Amino acid sequence: MNTSVLRISCPDQPGLVAAVSSWVAGVGGNIVHAEQHTDRHDGMFFQRVEFTHGDMVGADSLRAGFAAVAANWAMDFTLEPLPWRPRTAVLCSRQLHCAADLLSRTTYGDLGLDIVGVVSNHADAQQLATSFGHTFFHVPVEGGDTGRAEQENTLSTILDSLQVDLVVLARYMLVLPGDLVRRWSGRMINIHHSFLPAFVGANPYRQAHDRGVKVIGATAHYVTEELDEGPIIAQDVARVTHRDDVEELTRIGRDLETVVLARAVRAHVEHRVLAWNNRTVVFG
Amino acid sequence: MNTSVLRISCPDQPGLVAAVSSWVAGVGGNIVHAEQHTDRHDGMFFQRVEFTHGDMVGADSLRAGFAAVAANWAMDFTLEPLPWRPRTAVLCSRQLHCAADLLSRTTYGDLGLDIVGVVSNHADAQQLATSFGHTFFHVPVEGGDTGRAEQENTLSTILDSLQVDLVVLARYMLVLPGDLVRRWSGRMINIHHSFLPAFVGANPYRQAHDRGVKVIGATAHYVTEELDEGPIIAQDVARVTHRDDVEELTRIGRDLETVVLARAVRAHVEHRVLAWNNRTVVFG
Amino acid sequence: MNTSVLRISCPDQPGLVAAVSSWVAGVGGNIVHAEQHTDRHDGMFFQRVEFTHGDMVGADSLRAGFAAVAANWAMDFTLEPLPWRPRTAVLCSRQLHCAADLLSRTTYGDLGLDIVGVVSNHADAQQLATSFGHTFFHVPVEGGDTGRAEQENTLSTILDSLQVDLVVLARYMLVLPGDLVRRWSGRMINIHHSFLPAFVGANPYRQAHDRGVKVIGATAHYVTEELDEGPIIAQDVARVTHRDDVEELTRIGRDLETVVLARAVRAHVEHRVLAWNNRTVVFG
Amino acid sequence: MNTSVLRISCPDQPGLVAAVSSWVAGVGGNIVHAEQHTDRHDGMFFQRVEFTHGDMVGADSLRAGFAAVAANWAMDFTLEPLPWRPRTAVLCSRQLHCAADLLSRTTYGDLGLDIVGVVSNHADAQQLATSFGHTFFHVPVEGGDTGRAEQENTLSTILDSLQVDLVVLARYMLVLPGDLVRRWSGRMINIHHSFLPAFVGANPYRQAHDRGVKVIGATAHYVTEELDEGPIIAQDVARVTHRDDVEELTRIGRDLETVVLARAVRAHVEHRVLAWNNRTVVFG
Repeated sequence: MNTSVLRISCPDQPGLVAAVSSWVAGVGGNIVHAEQHTDRHDGMFFQRVEFTHGDMVGADSLRAGFAAVAANWAMDFTLEPLPWRPRTAVLCSRQLHCAADLLSRTTYGDLGLDIVGVVSNHADAQQLATSFGHTFFHVPVEGGDTGRAEQENTLSTILDSLQVDLVVLARYMLVLPGDLVRRWSGRMINIHHSFLPAFVGANPYRQAHDRGVKVIGATAHYVTEELDEGPIIAQDVARVTHRDDVEELTRIGRDLETVVLARAVRAHVEHRVLAWNNRTVVFG
Repeated sequence: MNTSVLRISCPDQPGLVAAVSSWVAGVGGNIVHAEQHTDRHDGMFFQRVEFTHGDMVGADSLRAGFAAVAANWAMDFTLEPLPWRPRTAVLCSRQLHCAADLLSRTTYGDLGLDIVGVVSNHADAQQLATSFGHTFFHVPVEGGDTGRAEQENTLSTILDSLQVDLVVLARYMLVLPGDLVRRWSGRMINIHHSFLPAFVGANPYRQAHDRGVKVIGATAHYVTEELDEGPIIAQDVARVTHRDDVEELTRIGRDLETVVLARAVRAHVEHRVLAWNNRTVVFG
Repeated sequence: MNTSVLRISCPDQPGLVAAVSSWVAGVGGNIVHAEQHTDRHDGMFFQRVEFTHGDMVGADSLRAGFAAVAANWAMDFTLEPLPWRPRTAVLCSRQLHCAADLLSRTTYGDLGLDIVGVVSNHADAQQLATSFGHTFFHVPVEGGDTGRAEQENTLSTILDSLQVDLVVLARYMLVLPGDLVRRWSGRMINIHHSFLPAFVGANPYRQAHDRGVKVIGATAHYVTEELDEGPIIAQDVARVTHRDDVEELTRIGRDLETVVLARAVRAHVEHRVLAWNNRTVVFG
Repeated sequence: MNTSVLRISCPDQPGLVAAVSSWVAGVGGNIVHAEQHTDRHDGMFFQRVEFTHGDMVGADSLRAGFAAVAANWAMDFTLEPLPWRPRTAVLCSRQLHCAADLLSRTTYGDLGLDIVGVVSNHADAQQLATSFGHTFFHVPVEGGDTGRAEQENTLSTILDSLQVDLVVLARYMLVLPGDLVRRWSGRMINIHHSFLPAFVGANPYRQAHDRGVKVIGATAHYVTEELDEGPIIAQDVARVTHRDDVEELTRIGRDLETVVLARAVRAHVEHRVLAWNNRTVVFG
């Protein structure tokens, strides 16, 4: 038996659940997990249906079959096989805890990724990448604006040549150009080291310390052109006290960042995220 | 439009979701919230379907109609109207924080209960009950075992005469007799002041202190004949340190107990709990 | 034996702890709890010393005695008796969960306050206040700006006439005038229904929903002239999902607000808070 | 300047803080962090004092100097230099997430350890250890009881020959013999994959699932001869639901285990833990 995941969003109306489940039954499928969400304020319906079906039926043929249902009900949908091992590029800079964690989780099977490259504007991650058996791409910024544009081109070329499905910004500290962000829309996840929307921009732990907050956080989100404004996939927080200086906040934050980023990446890989209106539905 | 909630448990098999959603569509209903859970280990299927339907269709007629579907698929089911305001008895002893919280929440609309009586083996709660406009029943234990049996009879008679739908043990410190527990099976919720199954029995905060734990908790569960062993509905925890003596653990614990008990009661009132095999499915 | 609490802030230098503890020993005191904090970034030293001493020594005489030590080391200090039952005014508007919680906690001894009045711009809290045996002051805003100024004058007169030590804004929804805020500086605590500095201003739960955050929070802070910018005393957070609409966020938030406000008030009453540079040191 | 840490435990009495701080001042030291705890129930006093002092004064001479103070007040004490990089052995079996995390943290400076060896009864960790540049010791159990005794002897010999200061059981799944445990008393930290004292022994995630708990946890503790009964250093918890089967609990638990173990190890390395009466004081 194979497993597929159908994700749907459409205006809410009576009969949607019946229409979908009847279609699944009609193709000989068995729903093993289904979750729906109705946003009453916006009048929208969202559903994720995970179903098993015969080996001989491929995703393409299922997609073609469901298209008629979708047309009838004005649905946007995706239909993907599960498990899915996306070809993933990990981008990082000098802080390596998130990258190390992703590589480590992938190695012992906690994350179902195929890491096809580790890319950084600094050389620091080279040893990490190679010790885990991954190819390392050093793409430094050299010179001023020209160097920056060149670096972005090189980066873009690398991602293309690797045929990447998913880009993970694991504390990659350069802002990416708009066209690159647009091309990877919905397929590029960043970890921001604060509880967004508090403390956007640089040095969030310094900002948090100066405001005297008693809780700090980390936020994983899809990257959009507005810096730190993309749809939030996962967040977590930790309680802190006056005793925690910026250095200690940074240390506590590292544990948040690694866990939150991994949680977001896992949700994406399992086709559990549906972004809509700059928010996400994250199915359980 | 009216709203009803259907809860189902049965052995898992293909077609269940389609069968249920087709039936709902067939009676002119619109599913506004549905959640299913498949326990693959035990091969069981659980579902909660909240749907709106015409005013003229009552719960009894819906129940009768669904019975045929249920028979076909070997389903256990309940079908209840929503909102439901259960006639509720609050039982307490000397610690009044949970009772006070329930009365307060009910007053400002946070909990949709009709409190029909506050019952205690001590007189302490009298003022609290009357200040919120509720009838207070003082049912003390007088004398030894005989007194205890009499007290239990009186209590049982009160619950019957009040036509109670739900009994909440809000830090009621007497163990109830087996026949009373059995009669209120699935309709009696207790708050235990520890993170069960750690620290069953008396003085859990003293036990927690002596073991030197760094986290304490509270547990709301349906009452069964095995003390502190019933199906858990809700739990929460708080971090503590060596600085927290038994008195401080008790104080921190009070906040956990009130919030956890209220959360469990709300889930019950909203028909979101399904107990099976001494565990619960708590729908979102 | 009596207990006093000494709180100190001063530039850090060697010998401070020895100077203070020697002075305590010199007046026959026994330190039962001491905690210090050094902010290395700002070069500041903070300490709270709780000590027992003979019945015959009053706070005034201790203060006079310690003044010489303080002068030697450029210390700011306060010295207060413990327990301290501040004369407290609770201000609220239409949302009564925080006020109800404070009254309830005070009644069963969880908070060591003397509530001398419940004040509101709406009549809704009247029954709550009187059922707990407290005086209720209804101070509505009538008419436009003139009415507002009058209301503020009346409020100020009430607080003065009650000889209030502490003002708790328990979801009081009117902004207070600058002179009132200045007069109660460090003695007025507000609960804001968001994880500040995220979502300042009105309708934070709506803001949180629209941003799609996965965690919401509540913040208790001393009131300053800059709205929502005062020193934070306590914060807490809860995880939420896409399923939680604004109404549900509001409900979850209520539990956060009550617990966070009570925590902040308790810390204040136990002389455990020291505000400095728009941040707080909250001793354990 | 050098830094030293003094940890004290003794029966509580007036004058202790003054005695200690005066001694520090007397040796030209400056207290940079001090925290004390009085256990009123047991009448015990605990203190940790971190102080800077001249380069020329060694820990041995400070210890000798303080011994006189300690004798006067019946103190147990330790005095250690900071930072301290203990020679650490990491023991693991087949589950490698904790070991990988410790190695990773050590590499990027999050934990101040010198890992002198990775030891396992299985070969699985070999690649991990060597990719991080550490020596791997494969110490399998061969045959029955004889093999087990041999294995324990080999393990003991390795720890001795490596001159290990700290043994970390990073999901090492064999019970260690009593004499080995006694020899490493207070210097051997284990991670247990439950919220102790709930679910001692084998398969705690299976136990947690079958009991239907809504929160799972992890516990780091010093190892004692009573299995899972040693002094708890750190615990943390995560909320779970009925949807989380044993596999998912195990996955969620991995994140708890790594973070809790790292937290406990850091506290130990920074001389912040003081075990007494099978509990710990963990200074901030």
